[in-house]
Amino acid sequence: MRGLFGTPLLCTLLLSALAAPLALQAGNSSTSAAKHPPANVILFIGDGMDEHQITLARNYLLGANGTLAMEQLPVRSSAKVQTLREDDPTQYRYVADSANTASTLATGELTSMGRIATSAGDDRDLPTVLEAARQAGLATGLVTSANLTDATPAAFATHTAHRKCQNPGDMHKPINYVPATQQCLADHESQGGKGSIAEQLLASGVDVLLGGGKKEFTRIDSHTPLEKIAASHGYQLLQQREKLLAYHGNEPLLGLFASGHLPVEWIGEGNRRAEPMAFNLLGEPMFPTPFSCQQNPRHRGTPTLEEMTRVALERLADKSTGFFLMVEGASIDKQAHQRNPCGEIGELQAFDRAVAVGQAFASKQTNTLIIVTADHGQAGQIIPLPEYYQSWGGKQYPPGHYAVLETRSGELMGVSYATNAAPQGKSELHTGVNVPVFLQGIGHRQVPALIDQRTINQLMRQHLGLTSGAQ
Amino acid sequence: MRGLFGTPLLCTLLLSALAAPLALQAGNSSTSAAKHPPANVILFIGDGMDEHQITLARNYLLGANGTLAMEQLPVRSSAKVQTLREDDPTQYRYVADSANTASTLATGELTSMGRIATSAGDDRDLPTVLEAARQAGLATGLVTSANLTDATPAAFATHTAHRKCQNPGDMHKPINYVPATQQCLADHESQGGKGSIAEQLLASGVDVLLGGGKKEFTRIDSHTPLEKIAASHGYQLLQQREKLLAYHGNEPLLGLFASGHLPVEWIGEGNRRAEPMAFNLLGEPMFPTPFSCQQNPRHRGTPTLEEMTRVALERLADKSTGFFLMVEGASIDKQAHQRNPCGEIGELQAFDRAVAVGQAFASKQTNTLIIVTADHGQAGQIIPLPEYYQSWGGKQYPPGHYAVLETRSGELMGVSYATNAAPQGKSELHTGVNVPVFLQGIGHRQVPALIDQRTINQLMRQHLGLTSGAQ
Repeated sequence: MRGLFGTPLLCTLLLSALAAPLALQAGNSSTSAAKHPPANVILFIGDGMDEHQITLARNYLLGANGTLAMEQLPVRSSAKVQTLREDDPTQYRYVADSANTASTLATGELTSMGRIATSAGDDRDLPTVLEAARQAGLATGLVTSANLTDATPAAFATHTAHRKCQNPGDMHKPINYVPATQQCLADHESQGGKGSIAEQLLASGVDVLLGGGKKEFTRIDSHTPLEKIAASHGYQLLQQREKLLAYHGNEPLLGLFASGHLPVEWIGEGNRRAEPMAFNLLGEPMFPTPFSCQQNPRHRGTPTLEEMTRVALERLADKSTGFFLMVEGASIDKQAHQRNPCGEIGELQAFDRAVAVGQAFASKQTNTLIIVTADHGQAGQIIPLPEYYQSWGGKQYPPGHYAVLETRSGELMGVSYATNAAPQGKSELHTGVNVPVFLQGIGHRQVPALIDQRTINQLMRQHLGLTSGAQ
Repeated sequence: MRGLFGTPLLCTLLLSALAAPLALQAGNSSTSAAKHPPANVILFIGDGMDEHQITLARNYLLGANGTLAMEQLPVRSSAKVQTLREDDPTQYRYVADSANTASTLATGELTSMGRIATSAGDDRDLPTVLEAARQAGLATGLVTSANLTDATPAAFATHTAHRKCQNPGDMHKPINYVPATQQCLADHESQGGKGSIAEQLLASGVDVLLGGGKKEFTRIDSHTPLEKIAASHGYQLLQQREKLLAYHGNEPLLGLFASGHLPVEWIGEGNRRAEPMAFNLLGEPMFPTPFSCQQNPRHRGTPTLEEMTRVALERLADKSTGFFLMVEGASIDKQAHQRNPCGEIGELQAFDRAVAVGQAFASKQTNTLIIVTADHGQAGQIIPLPEYYQSWGGKQYPPGHYAVLETRSGELMGVSYATNAAPQGKSELHTGVNVPVFLQGIGHRQVPALIDQRTINQLMRQHLGLTSGAQ
């Protein structure tokens, strides 16, 4: 790895005496925990949340002078997103998916698209930071607004050749466009595999699992009530927001608050999304009218990411062992795929509120490293308003799907999705841009301006004392 | 201004004793310069160079594991791009142009699109950091790969209602889509104005002016040789690369190395750019074949941005007064407008080499603040490869202009431009994303993770001792 801590600063030198004892504090037994607070890591992953998606949400929510909670973390870096080719793992692709990038964040190793903590080409299981934390006696948790079996949470606690192996029923079905080396059958228990993602999660021993995807767990055994399946693995099953907020026991928690992904917080007025350009009889572009965002009535009764994060932090901190917690804002990405700027903005707001909960926690438990990042880029772009296209004359208009949002401060903002011409039902695609990294609790270390996603894994392991040597 | 220096760090406290004397060093007379080296600022502006444009150039040039020179600067932040509406300066637009953003970097004030260091709505001249540096006795310079009269350099040393007022002949022509308050006539000398940008630059007293745009200066007075016009303002005119590299005098320099913008360094193989999708007789998309980038033969004999930066630094450092230098990589933006990924990448490489010259200079003259940033976002996006669209089946393809580049490491990268459906002759448009900020020489200060372009101006003024109080 290239010089993780970059140019040495004078303050680094002056403070080096302080660094040595701190480096030993992580993973301590409870006796020494009295002297040094336990080391905690909270990794926030905004799925698809590149700088462009952040800017468009901030503009809508807070106007041109706003600052999100995540942007108030003291240190910023940017992470390269690296993806190996399954057919030749010495070569790279320049657009990733959530599976390979979450796998890199989780394991510190690069891999190919679709893979869940397994290696490109040869399908080795790659150990994760969550597993290492658990082995060291730390508490662990995964919180997401998607299915718990979705790629991002899955990559921290399970190992499969492909993200689609979510429940046992998935394992035999051939996956159409996926290479033979990534079909799910090899992961089936009958083939000596570890089983589907849902099965592996239940066996993972992760202390707190909160999200959606009830149907994936139900399919493990349709004859047995889900409570019983959960209990047989030591989990208390929670299925209602009220139960979650009222829970104060200390059993391992499996919270499943929707059949699939959790409903998103916001929708567009009249359910509007970005739309393809319409044309009048003269063939002239007719630009879409502006709209605002509103609450999604379907979200009512669903716990927010903020609420799930708060419960997870309480449960994990109670153990006083130190912990690793991953919190995913999953539907920033999913709503961008669907060209739904209001969905994206509402989910980014929900994610940012969860980050604020993490910051408040870290202000009390100071040995907490917070990293906020994304896994890969998304399609949304802020582009000019209709009046601008019209001022240039002729047939000038955005070639993709376009929305004009009226922001909270009453201004207009043009948003475009233009990575896929396919009409409805098909989705926009990821982009290959670097993703932002915000850090707090990194101490006196310098994080270089450009890192890669492996470095994020190393920073987390270091903070938890899970690696022996210096980088 | 919101807390510029963010969360205080322990090292800030420990080093605070050192801070006080350093804060007074800037703008010193030559007697005290012996004790404290003079304070220098080099501001590098990559026009249109957002994170996406940087990533696509890095991937092409250095592969998935590369790091550009600018990305080796020790501190990263990100700057909001803020644009007032000319028709109502209390309201914002969310997409900017190079004129209003360069004006903000130059003056520390927000303004409206098209404006050159004048205020939105009421057309007041806004004083610039370059002018303040000059008044304090510091040396000053502007280097660009565009016309010297183009918006970015212009905003540091001239004041006009609109960027199009480049030469006296421009001043009477009405500009079609521009509001009445931004027409150029009011800036004409006959109306008591300061004249065109070319005229104002000649009268600016800037010590080093290097770039293109000879025709704009010729139009000041077509009956007088350009050498004479330059000499009448005290400038030595240089028009050839060889003359520039051989020059070792200490007259003010006006280097004009092309009639318009300087030719770009790279073009696509066979002059290829991103192309609209073609379709076969069945209406199925035919994806473009890959191509690589090559040298542009038209660039031969043109000084590189690196060479111009080196000469400028030598000239300005010779004065031992401290200096302000702005270096613009102008055609990253211009080539993105033209959907020319090879042009973009070659210009970003040229810009990054100029940054490396600045870094080498700062390693010797340690009281040098380097800031590398962009003015606004651009259209280029890294999107999936044809094989990926094809694997999804059906009529899935990028809706804009698309190129598949074969990178230096032999991998393929898909690049899309999709902000404007207009075919040839019309251009892609800017985007509203935050822009990256890389810093070196900021000392022990903490720069927040999110700033705005006004803050960049304040950091430069502080470093040069051009503001009285603490921020």
